[in-house]
Amino acid sequence: MIITIIGLGLMGGSAAIDLRKRGIASHIIGVDTDKINANAALNIGFVDELLDMESAVKNAEFVIVAIPVDAALLVLPKVLDWVDKQVVTDMCSTKGKLLEWVKYHPKRRNYVAAHPMAGTEFSGPWAAISGLFDGKAVILCDTEDSDIRAVATTKRIFETLNMRVIYMNGANHDVHAAYISHISHISSFALALTVLEKEKNEKHIFDLASGGFDSTVRLAKSSAEMWTPIFGQNKENVLTVLETYISKLKDFKKTIENDDAEKLAKLIKESNQIRRILFK
Amino acid sequence: MIITIIGLGLMGGSAAIDLRKRGIASHIIGVDTDKINANAALNIGFVDELLDMESAVKNAEFVIVAIPVDAALLVLPKVLDWVDKQVVTDMCSTKGKLLEWVKYHPKRRNYVAAHPMAGTEFSGPWAAISGLFDGKAVILCDTEDSDIRAVATTKRIFETLNMRVIYMNGANHDVHAAYISHISHISSFALALTVLEKEKNEKHIFDLASGGFDSTVRLAKSSAEMWTPIFGQNKENVLTVLETYISKLKDFKKTIENDDAEKLAKLIKESNQIRRILFK
Repeated sequence: MIITIIGLGLMGGSAAIDLRKRGIASHIIGVDTDKINANAALNIGFVDELLDMESAVKNAEFVIVAIPVDAALLVLPKVLDWVDKQVVTDMCSTKGKLLEWVKYHPKRRNYVAAHPMAGTEFSGPWAAISGLFDGKAVILCDTEDSDIRAVATTKRIFETLNMRVIYMNGANHDVHAAYISHISHISSFALALTVLEKEKNEKHIFDLASGGFDSTVRLAKSSAEMWTPIFGQNKENVLTVLETYISKLKDFKKTIENDDAEKLAKLIKESNQIRRILFK
Repeated sequence: MIITIIGLGLMGGSAAIDLRKRGIASHIIGVDTDKINANAALNIGFVDELLDMESAVKNAEFVIVAIPVDAALLVLPKVLDWVDKQVVTDMCSTKGKLLEWVKYHPKRRNYVAAHPMAGTEFSGPWAAISGLFDGKAVILCDTEDSDIRAVATTKRIFETLNMRVIYMNGANHDVHAAYISHISHISSFALALTVLEKEKNEKHIFDLASGGFDSTVRLAKSSAEMWTPIFGQNKENVLTVLETYISKLKDFKKTIENDDAEKLAKLIKESNQIRRILFK
């Protein structure tokens, strides 16, 4: 299959590596408006050639749009303008607005909305790795609006990446993503800012960082280019969850202020129930 | 060396395993008020015998107090009442109050206050593992109040556990711990509560948890028995950092509410600076 990948960063690059390695891609065409990224992808070797977007789409059988969600709003309609029989999917972390955006596009049925729930805190073509998607879940959204064969092909692509395929409507997806992914990132970003502010005033206080800190703050290395538009597009859900989160933190604050050890222990024990979700 | 370990959980058990394995402990005596834990430690084999606390202290050359900080306030003075030439250390995550508590004890110089910055989200003797402390830092506090030979012996014990030894005064330690460790835990506990509250109302929404969520919420599995007294004893520092953290989250909230993408990107980029600290 000739596959075009638009956006040659962590996600697109990692997909390219394994789609070729596992034999489903016979030829991979790369598109990236960033010349440095594009040339890196060609030099690393996970794409076979670089083309302008129109030629890349027209010469492909399958197109993966792997760019930030704000850019996807501009690019996806153009890609659909150019397709004939090509199947198009994407890898964006928010789905509602994008699906609304192309709802009445004459080629809507060629498009299958996807959110592969995988990633690292790194970005760019140099961050691309084999195995990134293995064992993770991919959510396909509003598939009733896509051609049944387009869905089957997209499913096959993600199954080649060793992903579990889950179906959900776009609106539910965005609520889910706000709770499972978006709030974790805001929590980490804010934690990093808290610690950095302290560091500004007291040099050398943070010579050591323990395991717990590392893992909680790891996501704070994630890129602004990717996350700013996600929070924008999933605004209502993110604000709701952020409000709940702040109120939970205030519960902790008040309980500690009041020296209420019993209530504090109760809050912690309640939170321990998260094992149920994590080990599902 | 005959070593007594008071508290046979994750920390005490993991220390026992490696102190024996690496040849420094010739005989390990265990003490635990919880009979199930005590017998488990004996059956797993990381202690050689169980004794009452007084005999255990009197028969030892080196004593490690590895219990939650509230229990340590009760136990440490008693242990010091019983020591003759024995050296005593502890593994508590807050130091200020404990140091104040034994400041004028006639055997104060036999005690070396320590905080090994290691752990997992699991607890109990079954969680004990070899290598838990390897490569991590241990903070020895207010060592000018300890006998110089007691400090040397304690240093040798923690170096046998392959730890980097750092010296700090108790008050600084507690500020540091609030920023690096305590707030990470509150952040995780609150995040878990946020997600669990949502789950109560919408069943099955959390069938999947991505990598980011896992790592941010991992600490929410930590035990209430350990963490409730830590937040109590480090109250002032924890409240200060919690206040800053909540205000940073409010900055994010306001910026998202105002659709201010430029400011949002700026906040994220600032938080990315955490790389500097993590990679130190």
